[in-house]
Amino acid sequence: MLIVMSRDATEEQISDVIRTVESYGFKARPIPGGERTSIGVLFNQGAVDESLFLTLPGVKQTIAVTKPYKLVSREFHPEDTLIRIGDVVIGGDSLVIMGGPCAVESEEQVMTIARHVKAAGGDILRGGAFKPRTSPYAFHGMGEEGLKILAKAREAYGLPIVTEVMDLDCFDMVEAYADIVQIGTRNMQNFSLLRRAGESKKPVLLKRGMSATVDEWLMAAEYIMTEGNTEVILCERGVRTFVRHSRNTLDLSAVPVVRRESHLPVIVDPSHAAGYRDQVMPLARAAAAVSAHGLMIEVHHAPETAKCDGGQSLLPGQFEILCRQVRGIFDLSR
Amino acid sequence: MLIVMSRDATEEQISDVIRTVESYGFKARPIPGGERTSIGVLFNQGAVDESLFLTLPGVKQTIAVTKPYKLVSREFHPEDTLIRIGDVVIGGDSLVIMGGPCAVESEEQVMTIARHVKAAGGDILRGGAFKPRTSPYAFHGMGEEGLKILAKAREAYGLPIVTEVMDLDCFDMVEAYADIVQIGTRNMQNFSLLRRAGESKKPVLLKRGMSATVDEWLMAAEYIMTEGNTEVILCERGVRTFVRHSRNTLDLSAVPVVRRESHLPVIVDPSHAAGYRDQVMPLARAAAAVSAHGLMIEVHHAPETAKCDGGQSLLPGQFEILCRQVRGIFDLSR
Amino acid sequence: MLIVMSRDATEEQISDVIRTVESYGFKARPIPGGERTSIGVLFNQGAVDESLFLTLPGVKQTIAVTKPYKLVSREFHPEDTLIRIGDVVIGGDSLVIMGGPCAVESEEQVMTIARHVKAAGGDILRGGAFKPRTSPYAFHGMGEEGLKILAKAREAYGLPIVTEVMDLDCFDMVEAYADIVQIGTRNMQNFSLLRRAGESKKPVLLKRGMSATVDEWLMAAEYIMTEGNTEVILCERGVRTFVRHSRNTLDLSAVPVVRRESHLPVIVDPSHAAGYRDQVMPLARAAAAVSAHGLMIEVHHAPETAKCDGGQSLLPGQFEILCRQVRGIFDLSR
Amino acid sequence: MLIVMSRDATEEQISDVIRTVESYGFKARPIPGGERTSIGVLFNQGAVDESLFLTLPGVKQTIAVTKPYKLVSREFHPEDTLIRIGDVVIGGDSLVIMGGPCAVESEEQVMTIARHVKAAGGDILRGGAFKPRTSPYAFHGMGEEGLKILAKAREAYGLPIVTEVMDLDCFDMVEAYADIVQIGTRNMQNFSLLRRAGESKKPVLLKRGMSATVDEWLMAAEYIMTEGNTEVILCERGVRTFVRHSRNTLDLSAVPVVRRESHLPVIVDPSHAAGYRDQVMPLARAAAAVSAHGLMIEVHHAPETAKCDGGQSLLPGQFEILCRQVRGIFDLSR
Repeated sequence: MLIVMSRDATEEQISDVIRTVESYGFKARPIPGGERTSIGVLFNQGAVDESLFLTLPGVKQTIAVTKPYKLVSREFHPEDTLIRIGDVVIGGDSLVIMGGPCAVESEEQVMTIARHVKAAGGDILRGGAFKPRTSPYAFHGMGEEGLKILAKAREAYGLPIVTEVMDLDCFDMVEAYADIVQIGTRNMQNFSLLRRAGESKKPVLLKRGMSATVDEWLMAAEYIMTEGNTEVILCERGVRTFVRHSRNTLDLSAVPVVRRESHLPVIVDPSHAAGYRDQVMPLARAAAAVSAHGLMIEVHHAPETAKCDGGQSLLPGQFEILCRQVRGIFDLSR
Repeated sequence: MLIVMSRDATEEQISDVIRTVESYGFKARPIPGGERTSIGVLFNQGAVDESLFLTLPGVKQTIAVTKPYKLVSREFHPEDTLIRIGDVVIGGDSLVIMGGPCAVESEEQVMTIARHVKAAGGDILRGGAFKPRTSPYAFHGMGEEGLKILAKAREAYGLPIVTEVMDLDCFDMVEAYADIVQIGTRNMQNFSLLRRAGESKKPVLLKRGMSATVDEWLMAAEYIMTEGNTEVILCERGVRTFVRHSRNTLDLSAVPVVRRESHLPVIVDPSHAAGYRDQVMPLARAAAAVSAHGLMIEVHHAPETAKCDGGQSLLPGQFEILCRQVRGIFDLSR
Repeated sequence: MLIVMSRDATEEQISDVIRTVESYGFKARPIPGGERTSIGVLFNQGAVDESLFLTLPGVKQTIAVTKPYKLVSREFHPEDTLIRIGDVVIGGDSLVIMGGPCAVESEEQVMTIARHVKAAGGDILRGGAFKPRTSPYAFHGMGEEGLKILAKAREAYGLPIVTEVMDLDCFDMVEAYADIVQIGTRNMQNFSLLRRAGESKKPVLLKRGMSATVDEWLMAAEYIMTEGNTEVILCERGVRTFVRHSRNTLDLSAVPVVRRESHLPVIVDPSHAAGYRDQVMPLARAAAAVSAHGLMIEVHHAPETAKCDGGQSLLPGQFEILCRQVRGIFDLSR
Repeated sequence: MLIVMSRDATEEQISDVIRTVESYGFKARPIPGGERTSIGVLFNQGAVDESLFLTLPGVKQTIAVTKPYKLVSREFHPEDTLIRIGDVVIGGDSLVIMGGPCAVESEEQVMTIARHVKAAGGDILRGGAFKPRTSPYAFHGMGEEGLKILAKAREAYGLPIVTEVMDLDCFDMVEAYADIVQIGTRNMQNFSLLRRAGESKKPVLLKRGMSATVDEWLMAAEYIMTEGNTEVILCERGVRTFVRHSRNTLDLSAVPVVRRESHLPVIVDPSHAAGYRDQVMPLARAAAAVSAHGLMIEVHHAPETAKCDGGQSLLPGQFEILCRQVRGIFDLSR
């Protein structure tokens, strides 16, 4: 941290700040400048709370220098993390495509969609059995019955499954069925859930919060990693902005930033970012073009009857075209 | 919901949309206009999923009409909800002031601050025993020991206590000690926690999510109310915007909007919105000026040693001035 | 427009609203529903001011239906607008690439960069002679001397030039030299400048404002078109959000939305969206993947000495790779 | 500026950065830390372009330290600037209230409203003769005829007038009639207009841009001041956020921030922030509570017939109550 003093700060005020810094066990290094003095705070572990210094007399501003994350950072672990689920490798040189319905609605529905996903060349089957919904009156998923259906589809088509865990209560159950446990946007800072995920032996797919900075998102992954689970997949899914023509604004620059800052794989969910089917295909292609490690796409064979998010689900034929396009684009983008 | 057809939609497309609307059990009412036809969707209960219609041929746009909430709405329950905790009434004609430290750090700390809060005319003591923190390396609260300290302060100074519940695991314990159970910003859409809060006999203070719309916030309150708990206090605490000079941007227009839309009381937390002490006092006065039902203010007698949020905590002397100012402003604002 | 009445609105209030609507020369069509009545406002030309009705007794809400733009809309003009500048066609089946420095700094600089742009397969040369800068102390461009340098580069390399006009005073001069007149982000709602651009015989490149909705952006284009200039190129360049890892957040979903709503071509400027060189290449590829009609890229052979935006300028070698990648991706994306 | 090196930056990379810094005439001061080295850039005048250093090998991050503004800063000019217009003083110890219609529509309209503004205790009359409007089809103001009407109202009621200038072309005319020349939100970064305002002998009211940071806003004021005009009044009017229940989100924390950073007076326009009449009164009170130096309020005696912004205009009776409330609150807030 850098503490910037006012132009008219006195020598005494500067000494007081230095004394305060050192009272916390840090080292203070004054940096006299042309117009004003700044004071570097050294030998801190992790980020320092700026509020400790901000209100001392003569202090104009504090500036964070150290990034708050450690285990997730590329400085700490330079090589890319590869996550293997059966034959699928996430974080390597091929684009991993996850497809499936928003919610598990019936065995027939999941089997039909899984067949299409497999045929189109998808790698992993997605589908929710526990659905966090804005309204208490909406459909909240089939629960364990839904998980069993997903497991059947896995067996039938050889597709690993990724499915969402909603709370501590259902974690054990979801973990038992899933190949990848998904933590949703609204739970990105549910720290108890993150800690529980950190104790899991299953890889965790961590969606970015609706208004989370990349730092906060990586810190959420840090929570999981501090408990011992090193297999975290980050998933960009759009952030909330003033824009109204899409449900969220897909922040694709987050992909190169995460790839530079962290060794963890990062994928993109264009379906939730868009909210409208006609935006999903272009945004999915864009995600491949920024070299995301994977895509998560909602697919439904009869979206007009879907119990959730039908309007953003691709039809099987669209999904097939998409798979072809994005694999080509991913290869061109290296 | 209103379904707006394209200017060049055919008669057949219009009929198809009408048929589809009716297939869901709603009533469709076509509204021919100068340039285009719209179709009203009637007799729905709650909001209709726009994605059911948005992709039908000839449809240009769908427009939501019905608000998604019921129990929280003023249309459903016209009179203001009053919440009584001992002698304190939240939602009525006086401004309720909650003050205290961000986190419980020690008995001496809480007792000192509680004494100041009481002396300044505060109504309720705040303080966290379970702290959700962005970093896994930060201080996470004293747990049950902290709750016991709060209970002692309650006895000593006659101040009811409000304290945060972090997850399902600690709910019973927090509920046993607290007079008001607080659900934090990051948990506003932790739906399992909301349902559990709905089963509680204690009033619930529900903070607005960092990027939640008022509709989403009221829907979170609706989750609590559908489980039977009618005592929900809404708390505006700033939203995330592009602005960088404050931690969040306090959205004070939310107060008159909530007061018009809902019968529930709405208070304001200027401390977390500001993030900097010198902004807290003006924003607290502003909250009284928009006729919020209460304020939640961080107070610390030695903020430079606080384990969290010291930089935004008021000193006891500032809190005392504040209490005087805001009560005067609240009375002038009617 | 739809006027939604309160659940408890009286018959008399409904009649009053209808009378008011008709007093403005519109037609009112009441739509009785299950819970409440709505009133459609018909035969308006363009959008109706909601504030005319919002405060009438019994009115709960007003909802806009008609889009405010006409000339720019695809409903009005279904075929794509093609803009021809010499051999280059913007809006058709090939991706148009504009490259060049942020600012014209010297003849040698422009000539060097233009040579690289041409060699890499760029179509149009960009470069600013009049630079709007946040600081009055920054470099503001070479003015007419800069325009003459651009004209020389056009002659030498056969590249049409696009350059920014800053105000009414310099419009005639810029127009005389430029093949495409650019209106910058900060001038998107400089309505006097838009009207002047509407009288020009040159195509206009209209950048989206930093926090403009697509509707506002299209309305700015409508200003130009109402004065008679039908050759408007829209340019997405990122919007301002809470995100801090890039200068702006590139809103790529705007591209399919504009392509659906309007017949005008839409291009993307990833350089200003990113602000950092290592994000420019992935975002440029992403723009090609969403089927933008073109790209505008900052290129500099010695970015460390550039007088503006050096940090986001690609090196010639990077630009060459980029041209190859984006043309491949654009073709794969159809 | 502080240049932060990667943890694994080599000695040579550090030396290269130092050499580059010094090649620009700055002084470089290395600050070895526990984990990494940072390099302070000293003796720069104004802000340094980070892109000069960001892409050098081994550089992780650059951090701005110096604020980019000078003339507007309180460090440069510690005393509050007072702006006198006749008997009215802006920036001192009383709250200055500006009221009037959005647009001048007729002599009778302005005279009626001016009489109400005067009677309620308003200090200054507002009203637009040149109206920047999102739509080319909307009412754009009466032009010079409107200015003449304002001048008549000034004579009749002894109220100074503030009115908006839209472009360079109408500046002389507006300047001749106005007591305060207003630069609107959409023109905050119309740098040619700012320079022209800097040459004016009239005080300038500078509205904050819809998504401008406080730094950018102060830099716009710096443009005016560099040309010699020291009388700039800053006006907060809400920023664009994801929030939809108000037209903009009023950023009241900007007021204490501007008061700390700058010597210039800062007022608040709650009418444009709110967009809805029922939010204007609470937000106006809130503005007084944060110690803004003044308020700008839209007032109309017949808002249902207003040619613009009728829905956010207060009725004369409301304005009268407001004046009383805000003056009381302003006094309580000191």
